[in-house]
Amino acid sequence: MRAVTVKPLESGSADVRDVPDPQAGPGEMLVEGLALGICGTDREIVAGDYGWAPPGRDRLVLGHESLGRVRTAPADSGFAPGDLVVGVVRRPDPVPCGACAHGEFDMCRNGSYTERGIKQIDGYGSELWTVETAYAVKLDPALAGVGVLMEPTTVVAKAWEQIERVGARSWFEPRRVLVTGAGPIGLLAALLGVQRGLEVHVLDLVSDGPKPQAVAALGAQYHSTGISDVVAGAQPDILIEATGASRVVFDAMANTASYGIVCLTGVSPVGRKISVDLGAVNRDMVLENDVVLGSVNANLSHYAAAADALAKADVEWLSRLITRRVPLDRFAEALDARPDDIKVVLDLTA
Amino acid sequence: MRAVTVKPLESGSADVRDVPDPQAGPGEMLVEGLALGICGTDREIVAGDYGWAPPGRDRLVLGHESLGRVRTAPADSGFAPGDLVVGVVRRPDPVPCGACAHGEFDMCRNGSYTERGIKQIDGYGSELWTVETAYAVKLDPALAGVGVLMEPTTVVAKAWEQIERVGARSWFEPRRVLVTGAGPIGLLAALLGVQRGLEVHVLDLVSDGPKPQAVAALGAQYHSTGISDVVAGAQPDILIEATGASRVVFDAMANTASYGIVCLTGVSPVGRKISVDLGAVNRDMVLENDVVLGSVNANLSHYAAAADALAKADVEWLSRLITRRVPLDRFAEALDARPDDIKVVLDLTA
Repeated sequence: MRAVTVKPLESGSADVRDVPDPQAGPGEMLVEGLALGICGTDREIVAGDYGWAPPGRDRLVLGHESLGRVRTAPADSGFAPGDLVVGVVRRPDPVPCGACAHGEFDMCRNGSYTERGIKQIDGYGSELWTVETAYAVKLDPALAGVGVLMEPTTVVAKAWEQIERVGARSWFEPRRVLVTGAGPIGLLAALLGVQRGLEVHVLDLVSDGPKPQAVAALGAQYHSTGISDVVAGAQPDILIEATGASRVVFDAMANTASYGIVCLTGVSPVGRKISVDLGAVNRDMVLENDVVLGSVNANLSHYAAAADALAKADVEWLSRLITRRVPLDRFAEALDARPDDIKVVLDLTA
Repeated sequence: MRAVTVKPLESGSADVRDVPDPQAGPGEMLVEGLALGICGTDREIVAGDYGWAPPGRDRLVLGHESLGRVRTAPADSGFAPGDLVVGVVRRPDPVPCGACAHGEFDMCRNGSYTERGIKQIDGYGSELWTVETAYAVKLDPALAGVGVLMEPTTVVAKAWEQIERVGARSWFEPRRVLVTGAGPIGLLAALLGVQRGLEVHVLDLVSDGPKPQAVAALGAQYHSTGISDVVAGAQPDILIEATGASRVVFDAMANTASYGIVCLTGVSPVGRKISVDLGAVNRDMVLENDVVLGSVNANLSHYAAAADALAKADVEWLSRLITRRVPLDRFAEALDARPDDIKVVLDLTA
C-alpha cells in the first residue's frame, strides 16, 4: 500500500512510497484510510524540526488527523465493517503518570506518551491503517465528507472544556466569545461557541473569501479591525486566541473584559521580540481577576465531545472548512499554505 | 475621636483629625481600633490617585487593614465585649450582580460594590469604628499583636483558593511553590504554602535582613538569584508572583513548569515598555497547558480561611512580618517605604 513517510529531523525526506500492508493485532481493527488532514505540526515534521520514528526504524508514517472506514473489526468490539472511524493521536505510557492514570493523557506529566504520526508510532497517512478499538471513535455516517475535521475539533473541545472548568473557579455565566484567527481551530472554536448558545465574534485579517463567508454562515459576527475595538464593542467574557501571532497574543491579554478568560491555542514561532507594557497587562489581570490559559491536545473524553459536536453541526457548513483536497500522490502540494486555505486534506483514496 | 482622613483624588490632603464618635446602628458593633495596616492602596489614595468619599461628603476615613476589640455588640450576635475582631473591606451592592448574589462579592461583575476606607464608606483608621456583625470576623485572642495581618491574609487565602480551583481543571497534586517577592503578600503566601504541606521557595532581591530571616524561620528556602535558575532547580508546580515588577512578571510567565499555574497578585505601575519574546511564552503556555491567573480582594469565605490560617500559624513568626509600628499621630511616617519594611502598622491606641 502507499503511505506518506518521513525521516524525522531530516528536512526534505518526506515522500509517498509503497510499504507493507499493516496487520491488525488483538483488539485492533483494520481500516481503509479515506482522508488525512494536514496541519502545522505535519509541516514542522516535514521541515525536519520535529518528530520521532518508531524504535528501531528510521522512517515514520506521517499523519494524525485521520478518517477511515472499518474493513475488519474484532467481534463484540462495538465496531463493524463499513463504520466511519477516526483514530486517537496519543497513547499513554504503559506506566502512567498521575494524569494518565486518570485518563488525562493530554495532560501527561512525564512526557513518555507516544503519538500516531508524530512520536514513535506510525500515523494515519496511508491507504490502510490499524487502530486499537479502545483508541477509535465511530462517527455519524453523514460525516463521511467532513469527518477528517475530527482531530482539530477534539483540540477545540478540550479548549472549551478547560475554559469552562477554569471559568467555574467562580460564578460563570458567559454570554459572548471572541475568536482571533479564522483558520480551522478558530472556526471550529466558533462552531462550538454557537452550539453553546453564545454570541460569537471572529476576528481575522482578511476582509473577504471563505473565512468571512464561513463565519457569516454560522450566524456569527466577523471583524477585520483591531482587537481593542471589537472588545470595546462586544465585551466578550471569553477570548480564544488561534493565530499564535505574538502581537495578537499581547492584544488578547491586554484587552480582556473583567473576569475574562483568554484561551491560547496557537503555536507561535520563537525568537521575535516585541516591545510591550506588560506591567499594564499584569495590573489589569490582577485587578480584574483575569485568567490566561494554554490548551493543546485531547484525551478520549474530548474525542467523544467532538464527535457529538460534529454530529450536531451542519455538514454543508463543515464542508466549507475543507478548501482543498489533494490526491495522495501529490502530497507535496498539500503542504503549501495558500491565502484562502482553511483546511487542506489529503485524499487517501485517489 | 481621632481618625486618619483624606480628601480622595487630592494629593497631600491626608491628616489625623478629630471627628465625631461613630454610633453603632442595628446589627452593628462598636469597636475600639487597635491597629491599622498600611498598604500600597493607602499610598495611592494619599497620593491622590484613587479613592471615593462617602456620598455627600468630601473626606473619607482611610484604612482597610483592620484590627479592633469589641466595646458593644448586639445580643445574640455571636460577639461579646472584649472579642478581637477584624472588619471586612468590601460590601456588595444591595442589588447584587450574579457573582455577588452567590456571595462572591470579590468577583463583583457590575462594579457597584463599596469598600471601607477606599470606596464610599469610612475605613478603619480611627480610634473607634463600627461594623455590621455580618461583616466582622472574630480572631483567636492570641492574635492581638498580629491580627492586623488578617486582611492581606484574606487576599492570599483567595489566591490559594483560586490556584486550587484552577488547578482542579485536571489532575493536580502540586508539591512545590515558588513565591516571587518577600513582602507581606509573598510571605503570607509562603506561610499558606507551608501549611498545605508544600515545599516552599521564596525569591527576592535582598540577600539579608528580615525577609530572608522570615523565610528561613518558616522552614522555606530563600533565593536571591534569577527566576530561571530557581525554577530549573526546584521545578515548582505553582508560582505566586507578588512583586508586580513587569520583568519579574515576564520571567514568571516564561519559566513555568509544564502544566504550571502562575498566580499574579502584585499591582504594577503602567507606562513602562519592555522588549520580550512573547511568542515563546505563548508557545510554552499552549504546549505545556499552562495557566496564568490574576487574583485580588476577598469574600467572607476567604476571611474564614484566613482566620484559620492565622490561628494555626506561629505568633512569633507572624510578628516578624510587622517591622514598624507607628503611633497614630505620626501617620505620615507610616507611609514611608523603608528598605527593610515588610508590614508597617499604625498603632491606634498610642
